Amino acid sequence: MDNHGHHEEHLKRRDTLCDIVIGMSDGLTVPFALAAGLSGAVNSTNIIVIAGIAEIAAGSIAMGLGGYLAGKTEQDHYNSEVKREYYEVENLRHKEIEETKEFFASIGLSEELQNKATEEIAMDKKQWVDFMMKYELGLEKPDPKRATKSALNIGLSYIVGGLVPLSPYFIVEEPVNGLKISVGVTILCLFVFGYFKSKITGVNAWAGALRVMLIGALAAGAAFGVAKLFEG
Amino acid sequence: MDNHGHHEEHLKRRDTLCDIVIGMSDGLTVPFALAAGLSGAVNSTNIIVIAGIAEIAAGSIAMGLGGYLAGKTEQDHYNSEVKREYYEVENLRHKEIEETKEFFASIGLSEELQNKATEEIAMDKKQWVDFMMKYELGLEKPDPKRATKSALNIGLSYIVGGLVPLSPYFIVEEPVNGLKISVGVTILCLFVFGYFKSKITGVNAWAGALRVMLIGALAAGAAFGVAKLFEG
Repeated sequence: MDNHGHHEEHLKRRDTLCDIVIGMSDGLTVPFALAAGLSGAVNSTNIIVIAGIAEIAAGSIAMGLGGYLAGKTEQDHYNSEVKREYYEVENLRHKEIEETKEFFASIGLSEELQNKATEEIAMDKKQWVDFMMKYELGLEKPDPKRATKSALNIGLSYIVGGLVPLSPYFIVEEPVNGLKISVGVTILCLFVFGYFKSKITGVNAWAGALRVMLIGALAAGAAFGVAKLFEG
Repeated sequence: MDNHGHHEEHLKRRDTLCDIVIGMSDGLTVPFALAAGLSGAVNSTNIIVIAGIAEIAAGSIAMGLGGYLAGKTEQDHYNSEVKREYYEVENLRHKEIEETKEFFASIGLSEELQNKATEEIAMDKKQWVDFMMKYELGLEKPDPKRATKSALNIGLSYIVGGLVPLSPYFIVEEPVNGLKISVGVTILCLFVFGYFKSKITGVNAWAGALRVMLIGALAAGAAFGVAKLFEG
């Protein structure tokens, strides 16, 4: 029981970190690249600031509400599947018995144990449905507050991330100067962010930091090039 | 075996659809909102087109490569966990036996069956590791080509989605006129997109269509308001 609670805490913390990574990842990259792209095409930081702020507002809301929707959808999907499993356990018992046996066969148990294990599990309906949800369908019971939390985490991370590359344009007047500071600050932040992101996901942190930084630079370079092209 | 292959096909199709949904969802919303925001703040569609194109380039690359990274990370994570499980099965057999028993206890098997089932599973090392990966850690073996496919699916969907709200600004000259057509076209596309997205995820399609449409409208409204505010 204690172990189970610990596992859930762990999953929640993981979900939160995942949200922050999603929001900040795009927040650091897209407004950065947009501002860089515009720096090559317009001659006033004013427009870059307006476009950047509009993008941060749009992006944080779209991604935040997207996260909310994803959370709600997960919840709805889980609830409708639970209902279906209860229905099947009551009315299609034979089929469910077959599926449960198939699970035990798939992990390598003998015919004898397949039957015995299925028999034991099927004794309690709730236990049986829980088992089918988790191991036949691979669905974890979602946290009911998840959708709202997810929206806030993603949205705020996007705003925080987005203000980093945009802030230099608030201070300087020449787009090119803003771009120089923005590139320096953002590349550094992408590197640090990539480092911690990789630490969390358990891959090589330095390689991860480099990869995240390169993505940001590539996106900004492409945006700059494309904007230059369309300006001409 | 056939059932298993069918299951994998199903998962692959699901992954592809999921990529398209991720890319198109943000592609339809963010460039739409950015262009709407700028329509309230600048007096030439030229800047909106440049900013929009820069945003689509930035967004598609950032999201596409983000998807690539996510795929690669999943792969690396899976491989390192497989190695660890093999190590533990060889060197910490006692601990692994305990964990396997715990799994069978958690699904509701009796002490006797916990022991017997664990014994059978532990007879074959590969089978045992496969079992631990899937049911202790909840990790599915990822498709090796997944990262590249995912990047392409997300990136292209973002571009396709982003060109919808931007295209009116290519044709008309007055930002406000572009905005009117863009709102009409995009709201319609968001509705249709939301409808199919909900069909796929198995929630009420009309409610889902409405929700997706509202998110887009909200993001665009906020971007418009914020850009107006910063312009003044």
